[in-house]
Amino acid sequence: MARTEQTTLGIGMVGYAFMGAAHSQGWRTVGRVFDLPMRPVLAAVCGRDRAAVRAAADKHGWADAETDWRDLVARDDVQVVDICTPGDSHAEIAIAALEAGKHVLCEKPLANSVEEAEAMASAARRAREQGVVAMVGFNYRRTPAMAFARRMVEEGRIGAFRHVRISYLQDWLVDPEFPLTWRLEREHAGSGALGDLGAHIVDLAQYLSGETLVGVSAIAETFVRERPLPGGGSRGTVTVDDAVLFTGRLASGALAFFEATRMAAGRKNSLRLELNGERGSLAFDLERLNELSFHDHTEPVASAGFRRILVTEPDHPYLEAWWPPGHALGYEHTFVHQARDLVEAIATGSDPSPSFADGLQVQRVLAAVEESAEKNAVYTPVPAQEVP
Amino acid sequence: MARTEQTTLGIGMVGYAFMGAAHSQGWRTVGRVFDLPMRPVLAAVCGRDRAAVRAAADKHGWADAETDWRDLVARDDVQVVDICTPGDSHAEIAIAALEAGKHVLCEKPLANSVEEAEAMASAARRAREQGVVAMVGFNYRRTPAMAFARRMVEEGRIGAFRHVRISYLQDWLVDPEFPLTWRLEREHAGSGALGDLGAHIVDLAQYLSGETLVGVSAIAETFVRERPLPGGGSRGTVTVDDAVLFTGRLASGALAFFEATRMAAGRKNSLRLELNGERGSLAFDLERLNELSFHDHTEPVASAGFRRILVTEPDHPYLEAWWPPGHALGYEHTFVHQARDLVEAIATGSDPSPSFADGLQVQRVLAAVEESAEKNAVYTPVPAQEVP
Amino acid sequence: MARTEQTTLGIGMVGYAFMGAAHSQGWRTVGRVFDLPMRPVLAAVCGRDRAAVRAAADKHGWADAETDWRDLVARDDVQVVDICTPGDSHAEIAIAALEAGKHVLCEKPLANSVEEAEAMASAARRAREQGVVAMVGFNYRRTPAMAFARRMVEEGRIGAFRHVRISYLQDWLVDPEFPLTWRLEREHAGSGALGDLGAHIVDLAQYLSGETLVGVSAIAETFVRERPLPGGGSRGTVTVDDAVLFTGRLASGALAFFEATRMAAGRKNSLRLELNGERGSLAFDLERLNELSFHDHTEPVASAGFRRILVTEPDHPYLEAWWPPGHALGYEHTFVHQARDLVEAIATGSDPSPSFADGLQVQRVLAAVEESAEKNAVYTPVPAQEVP
Amino acid sequence: MARTEQTTLGIGMVGYAFMGAAHSQGWRTVGRVFDLPMRPVLAAVCGRDRAAVRAAADKHGWADAETDWRDLVARDDVQVVDICTPGDSHAEIAIAALEAGKHVLCEKPLANSVEEAEAMASAARRAREQGVVAMVGFNYRRTPAMAFARRMVEEGRIGAFRHVRISYLQDWLVDPEFPLTWRLEREHAGSGALGDLGAHIVDLAQYLSGETLVGVSAIAETFVRERPLPGGGSRGTVTVDDAVLFTGRLASGALAFFEATRMAAGRKNSLRLELNGERGSLAFDLERLNELSFHDHTEPVASAGFRRILVTEPDHPYLEAWWPPGHALGYEHTFVHQARDLVEAIATGSDPSPSFADGLQVQRVLAAVEESAEKNAVYTPVPAQEVP
Repeated sequence: MARTEQTTLGIGMVGYAFMGAAHSQGWRTVGRVFDLPMRPVLAAVCGRDRAAVRAAADKHGWADAETDWRDLVARDDVQVVDICTPGDSHAEIAIAALEAGKHVLCEKPLANSVEEAEAMASAARRAREQGVVAMVGFNYRRTPAMAFARRMVEEGRIGAFRHVRISYLQDWLVDPEFPLTWRLEREHAGSGALGDLGAHIVDLAQYLSGETLVGVSAIAETFVRERPLPGGGSRGTVTVDDAVLFTGRLASGALAFFEATRMAAGRKNSLRLELNGERGSLAFDLERLNELSFHDHTEPVASAGFRRILVTEPDHPYLEAWWPPGHALGYEHTFVHQARDLVEAIATGSDPSPSFADGLQVQRVLAAVEESAEKNAVYTPVPAQEVP
Repeated sequence: MARTEQTTLGIGMVGYAFMGAAHSQGWRTVGRVFDLPMRPVLAAVCGRDRAAVRAAADKHGWADAETDWRDLVARDDVQVVDICTPGDSHAEIAIAALEAGKHVLCEKPLANSVEEAEAMASAARRAREQGVVAMVGFNYRRTPAMAFARRMVEEGRIGAFRHVRISYLQDWLVDPEFPLTWRLEREHAGSGALGDLGAHIVDLAQYLSGETLVGVSAIAETFVRERPLPGGGSRGTVTVDDAVLFTGRLASGALAFFEATRMAAGRKNSLRLELNGERGSLAFDLERLNELSFHDHTEPVASAGFRRILVTEPDHPYLEAWWPPGHALGYEHTFVHQARDLVEAIATGSDPSPSFADGLQVQRVLAAVEESAEKNAVYTPVPAQEVP
Repeated sequence: MARTEQTTLGIGMVGYAFMGAAHSQGWRTVGRVFDLPMRPVLAAVCGRDRAAVRAAADKHGWADAETDWRDLVARDDVQVVDICTPGDSHAEIAIAALEAGKHVLCEKPLANSVEEAEAMASAARRAREQGVVAMVGFNYRRTPAMAFARRMVEEGRIGAFRHVRISYLQDWLVDPEFPLTWRLEREHAGSGALGDLGAHIVDLAQYLSGETLVGVSAIAETFVRERPLPGGGSRGTVTVDDAVLFTGRLASGALAFFEATRMAAGRKNSLRLELNGERGSLAFDLERLNELSFHDHTEPVASAGFRRILVTEPDHPYLEAWWPPGHALGYEHTFVHQARDLVEAIATGSDPSPSFADGLQVQRVLAAVEESAEKNAVYTPVPAQEVP
Repeated sequence: MARTEQTTLGIGMVGYAFMGAAHSQGWRTVGRVFDLPMRPVLAAVCGRDRAAVRAAADKHGWADAETDWRDLVARDDVQVVDICTPGDSHAEIAIAALEAGKHVLCEKPLANSVEEAEAMASAARRAREQGVVAMVGFNYRRTPAMAFARRMVEEGRIGAFRHVRISYLQDWLVDPEFPLTWRLEREHAGSGALGDLGAHIVDLAQYLSGETLVGVSAIAETFVRERPLPGGGSRGTVTVDDAVLFTGRLASGALAFFEATRMAAGRKNSLRLELNGERGSLAFDLERLNELSFHDHTEPVASAGFRRILVTEPDHPYLEAWWPPGHALGYEHTFVHQARDLVEAIATGSDPSPSFADGLQVQRVLAAVEESAEKNAVYTPVPAQEVP
């Protein structure tokens, strides 16, 4: 079948800020790089301000613009609803789209509460029976290095886990004069570093290990409790965490450590992790996302050591479609890969990954972390419930 | 003026292999990320095989396909001719395009000989008088780290140069059973590692230092002289260099070292450089292209040291249009930036950089290197002639 | 005064295993490198096996050998008793030596319990009134990088602390067939990774920050619960921790994370730390002990970044006596520096650092960690009591 | 045989500056760490200033002091003459000592000219017939990482060599106001960076590869030609090179690059090397001397990469006598290892390595480099002559 005869797949995106720009780049590019079973078409983007959403549509390459997400969901030329709005609107949009028979891609964290996440996962479960796919946007799984790390774990090269440690360090709140944006207010953002950064590292730890967290103990802090209001003049109160640390146990008994902070001076986007197992170890830093460190503990000790694998070979995940060995990919490629995997799941009818059920499970961990932090580090189990 | 009313700029591209794919990604993306004075339109791509070029057009997003570059050059909807073919066809296409009043972007190296490069630079000089722009594709200048390094040099933070050392290490010829492709035959490729890799590092050294090389001394080697023919069966003779090393002097008297090789096991695309000056030093590795190392020699020695600058801040070159701090760019972004700079030069009528004259100067260095290597390392001046 | 007329300072050392060898190297070398106010003399070493201790004396350069530590303490030619035995004998020897008017250097951890440590600190407090000095051997404070880090903190270059994270990773227990040595039995070793590795990182965190931990929350694990007995044949039960993780709060409110493990495949002696403050950050890895990473957050963001300071300059701590810039020191130099600082404290009558009171405070932290781990991570305050 | 009955080996050292201090540390320590067949005794040190040499003897632990090297050579209690003086006195002292039947350890470079080096190698050849040993002090061979690298080469893990690149970068001459010491005057120092730093890297390249250089092409420069005289006031002329770069060919046809400079701002003692072969690659930086990087090119490409081997395991060279895994050694340990190897060679009557013949060969390379640099990079063969 010639490419021009491909079935098309109409995408409708809600939201067009940072995440919207990244998703647009993903949708525009994916069919130009990968050989796909369906051809994504950027049908329409949705936002409340008519002029702004029209300009965004032009800039990012969307054919049309809508100002009400319900209209977007209802469009005949939209088969996938891609949700890039803040967390408090995820549940309503996603559930409506799923009930309308549309596939859904939803940015992380899945929701601002376990209740919302449960409703979403429940809707996804029902929709799945109708052949509808729902995926949550934990895009860092789609760096080739992380996907390759997962493959190495599956191949048994790490062995029984002993330790998982993973930190996500940023520094944009170090300056106490940084203003009090909506991201620092609980009513809009849900939480601070925990939901924004912590969701990523909880998902990555569970994805890489293939295990879930069974309990956590957390401490959190807001170092700068008052910040200038964006308009200037007076100051307001920060109502989310600047940083959160938690320890935990995986199902296998491995010990885990997590840290999410916006107060680590000099760390811009440093998602660093290390896994130690009985047969080997893996290490990674998102600031060097084309590299994976691997120690093979089965080698003779004299010539063993952490090796720096440049994850840019054709037989690394996703790399068959890109450039020759040694040519770096960047942050936005994760969104191209996410788009590819979603299209493949839709075309083949296979289960999406990470699913809304995965997103719900992460939400349960985050809720346990919040509860533990409120109770001064008391060990808090993570419920292992089915999707309702 | 609304974006849809932008003047369009029709692009016609010749060649659609590796470089064609990279340039396509650049042209498709640049207007989606940067605010441009003109809107690039992917008018047509050209290749000799009708079915293949048609498929490439569909895959990479070109509106039309041509099978003769003369037809492409003649199209009214093409204002820019982007040449991504092997070096032996650069001169003919570029000169014809310039004489037809089309702007030209030509992949590096500019040509396979100084004579061709002179003719091209001469044509570009004449076309420039008619407001036509010609640029050569030394894309590594457009990594943010290299552009920022140049800015630091201009600001005097390195001071009088003492040393420039720069290597471009790859390993795809280490295996003696790698086949004898056209890249290993002099009649098609011109030279081996020298033209392919050496051209990049000569340009970068001169760009960063703002100086030209005045003389060189070179040795070269072909380690594996016979390789299997691609079809299998018998073996043929490699007629280009596997590796070349040369020392040289910059106009200021600084000492320079260059190395280009395809025989450095484990190095995939390692373009590494270091500049040492009286006030500071810079270091870079293309395998970590988002980072620049800087040592400030004016600081107290006890707290001085090479610092790793993550070149991902909004006030770093090109970064204002991309993602938040710490979010990595990749290899292909250099082509987006190249497209932006070419569009800006065309729209504002400013001189392009690197110009064909710059490309010619690099060609003269490469010719001096070849001559020196043939004469067993004899010191060979680089002629400092005007563009004819 | 000529060097040969220096006052001598007789050293008597108890124990001659790994730590004894390291201390011997320190005592032999210190006077050859530093200009000291007193000249250390290796008077006698003590051990229970007469032949073995005699051989150790010859090998390590001690003039005489004793088989009863009481005899060593009683010698007129011994003014300093250096205790390198396992933790369960520290209290008895140290208290006896102090009461006999001898200066004491005691290996870490100070003792196997808070009670013993209190008795030791109490004895040291009384002895101090008589001009007698007691120091605990937290030798990592004496890497030039750590001493320089402390100086930078004191100079205000880090500012108000936000985060302290510090891990001590080893891998010698990864192999489940590693035998059940006395270090893995609680009755002899007190604890596992906690006392052995955790004591170092608690001390370093408090030393560098100049603050104490006010509370902790810990989890611990013994992954391999049965190991072969050293003699072979049957297996026995491991009664200490393989790994311990704990979070905590410093007096200033900064968040801290600690990890000590012998199960991190590929990490040989990786004591890694990072401090983040309002004005800057510091990072260090003991596997690269000549280097300190420093980020100056007061610099313009475009040229800021973690710099690698090679701590080998003459104006770095301890370096005035060693080699030219760039010449690495090693692990054992910490013992030379420790010897120097102790001799200086004795000669000048100044307070030793780290004192037994410091050692007691670390012991209280370790006890709180053990208590928290037993109670499943419950937040456990560290008592801030005076030395009794 | 009990240790106290060991045969003693009397050492007499000429010179007591930087190298004398380092050698003293080696001789004092070697018998305390390694089990040696003979026991080194620090018999006497020699220098021209009576008071100063007496003080040096006390400081560094030498039993006696001499003011005429002839007296030192003549002492009955001296069996080894250790020469730590500037290069212009090496030949006279070494030849006299060898003719007196004394073993000799001579600092590098062996001499200031090929003629002197030939006379010394000739004397060593004759003395060798009498069972007398002569060794030259290329101490960097004795870092465990370099000795282990050599072992890996011997085991065939690198395969046929393609590239050797090795730089020795320092920065102590970057400041143009650094004074004109004797090291910057040809009549005393012989050459500048070439003899001081270049000798090390030529020896290392040949040692690691097991091959000799057959020809070189060099450029050199003195960037700062006038410097203040040490006394102050007026300025004098620098008569040695600040920096030298040379390319070359090994006997096997591999291409080599060398650079020695004192003008690389921020590089303190950075001896960096990389070897690329058909089966693997090795990399090293003296500023991280406990680490060796190794890429195994025979591994599947997806999981291959440069691994960081921490060369601190008991089965790494020299390490059986030192500390547990992961505990760093430093610069001065190379002198302990050198002493060990010399004592072993003397006790067993085996050939020393590196021998004076090796030192002569290095001298021939340095002379070819100087000749090539004077003739503007002309390719200059290295004579492959026998020791006369």
